[in-house]
Amino acid sequence: MSRVVYVNGEFLPEEEAKISIFDRGFLFADGVYEVSTILDGKMVDNPAHLERLGRSMYELGMTPPCSMEEIEVIQQEMLKRNPIQEGGLYLQVTRGAADRDFVYPDESTRSSLIMFTQEKPVVESALAKRGMRISFQPDIRWQRRDIKTVGLLPASMAKVAAQGEGADDAWMVEDGKVTEGTSNNAYIITQDDVLVTKARSNKILHGITRKAVLALAKEEGLTIEERDFTPEEAKLAKEAFVTSASTFVTGVVNIDGQQLGNGTPGPMTIRLREIYIDFARQNLS
Amino acid sequence: MSRVVYVNGEFLPEEEAKISIFDRGFLFADGVYEVSTILDGKMVDNPAHLERLGRSMYELGMTPPCSMEEIEVIQQEMLKRNPIQEGGLYLQVTRGAADRDFVYPDESTRSSLIMFTQEKPVVESALAKRGMRISFQPDIRWQRRDIKTVGLLPASMAKVAAQGEGADDAWMVEDGKVTEGTSNNAYIITQDDVLVTKARSNKILHGITRKAVLALAKEEGLTIEERDFTPEEAKLAKEAFVTSASTFVTGVVNIDGQQLGNGTPGPMTIRLREIYIDFARQNLS
Repeated sequence: MSRVVYVNGEFLPEEEAKISIFDRGFLFADGVYEVSTILDGKMVDNPAHLERLGRSMYELGMTPPCSMEEIEVIQQEMLKRNPIQEGGLYLQVTRGAADRDFVYPDESTRSSLIMFTQEKPVVESALAKRGMRISFQPDIRWQRRDIKTVGLLPASMAKVAAQGEGADDAWMVEDGKVTEGTSNNAYIITQDDVLVTKARSNKILHGITRKAVLALAKEEGLTIEERDFTPEEAKLAKEAFVTSASTFVTGVVNIDGQQLGNGTPGPMTIRLREIYIDFARQNLS
Repeated sequence: MSRVVYVNGEFLPEEEAKISIFDRGFLFADGVYEVSTILDGKMVDNPAHLERLGRSMYELGMTPPCSMEEIEVIQQEMLKRNPIQEGGLYLQVTRGAADRDFVYPDESTRSSLIMFTQEKPVVESALAKRGMRISFQPDIRWQRRDIKTVGLLPASMAKVAAQGEGADDAWMVEDGKVTEGTSNNAYIITQDDVLVTKARSNKILHGITRKAVLALAKEEGLTIEERDFTPEEAKLAKEAFVTSASTFVTGVVNIDGQQLGNGTPGPMTIRLREIYIDFARQNLS
């Protein structure tokens, strides 16, 4: 059965879900997005995603297509029309359709809003069980990675390059330091049990799962250092993992050919994944 | 009258010109483009644009939607259906529509090809007569600016920021050096008549007009230095200008508040614009 997709006020079969070729999302990558994970048929931590969406639009001077309350109503309608138990609800806002010009169109231009669902296993993830292999790739992205735009080609290229080297995903490296994964934040646990992840700045996405997991790790009594780490330090780690809305906490078992521990997700990683899943189930809407 | 627009095999009124929301151009900025300027109803230096399009697709491992000969046939049909004398023919290729995934879809996915025209004065440009005001903005773009992708939001932001400061456009600055304009290459002519522009690398677009203008300037006997220059050096210049397919050679008369010469486009700039227009008229198709 075809998905029902939302495009600017209409719920449509996915085959009919189209947008103007003059949409600035298509011509200029002038768009922002969020993916709310669906668990037990509901969205995980969705208010945090809508808050970040608001920040992304604000940072780009983009007029919201409607109120956040209206967006949430449309999200709920999408869940009703696409009754999946696990997966994601993707949402994208662009500056709308206008004749092509590097200068933003005038403010009367209506922003575009589209949504679609994707069904996939979230809790029983094969990759989370097996653990990910990571290769390093140069971070060639722009300098405002804190804004969640659709300018994802460099991240896509890095993931494809990593898979070409036999890995599952890339950790990106800039100025000799690991920034983050292609669509996730990156963490190592050192041999003396310190959880290390890069501090927030314009260099990385301010992950919503990152925020929750760091708070949960702190409650668990883990020592946390938000600081840069190098590829070399990563390869010496006791454990490593990534976090993202759609993959929660997923262990990393091999970095640049170096196996971590016994080559399966480590015990602290597994524990953090479990407590994050509990957190997620307590934050559904 | 509505423009006739080309979308994946069909010539359509612009109001009906739509693309799937699953197109990777819309979701990932996974697309490349070219703009061939229209002069006297024909395209300027179009084979060079198609050659660069081929290079952009090659660099991204993107399957061409059809042969270059077929693209040219569609371009010519677009000119017939949109009989404008001056303006531009925009062409965009994306990796096509596929369910959202950072990893490229399999190679059977059909690349998208769209085209549209824009009518505007090219030879009798008001901006070329008056001369541009430039402000400096940080260059926050990705590191493969030699690939002409639709990931244009950072350039768009820089132009909007420049206009917010009362300028017409921005010159972008990275590591203390001017890279290029938001949609053009940047040049200064020093007080001792040396034409200076940044050398080609991944840091700037390899402009087709740049290549032609440098060759023409050499024939004119101008001394050319392809090297970095600083914002400070730019402000001390005798003349300055930009080149792009759509604006040809356009004088810069004010840089970061510093008027150059008498505040009108300089004589060498005017001469280069004239000989480039002659070149353009000899390279129409």
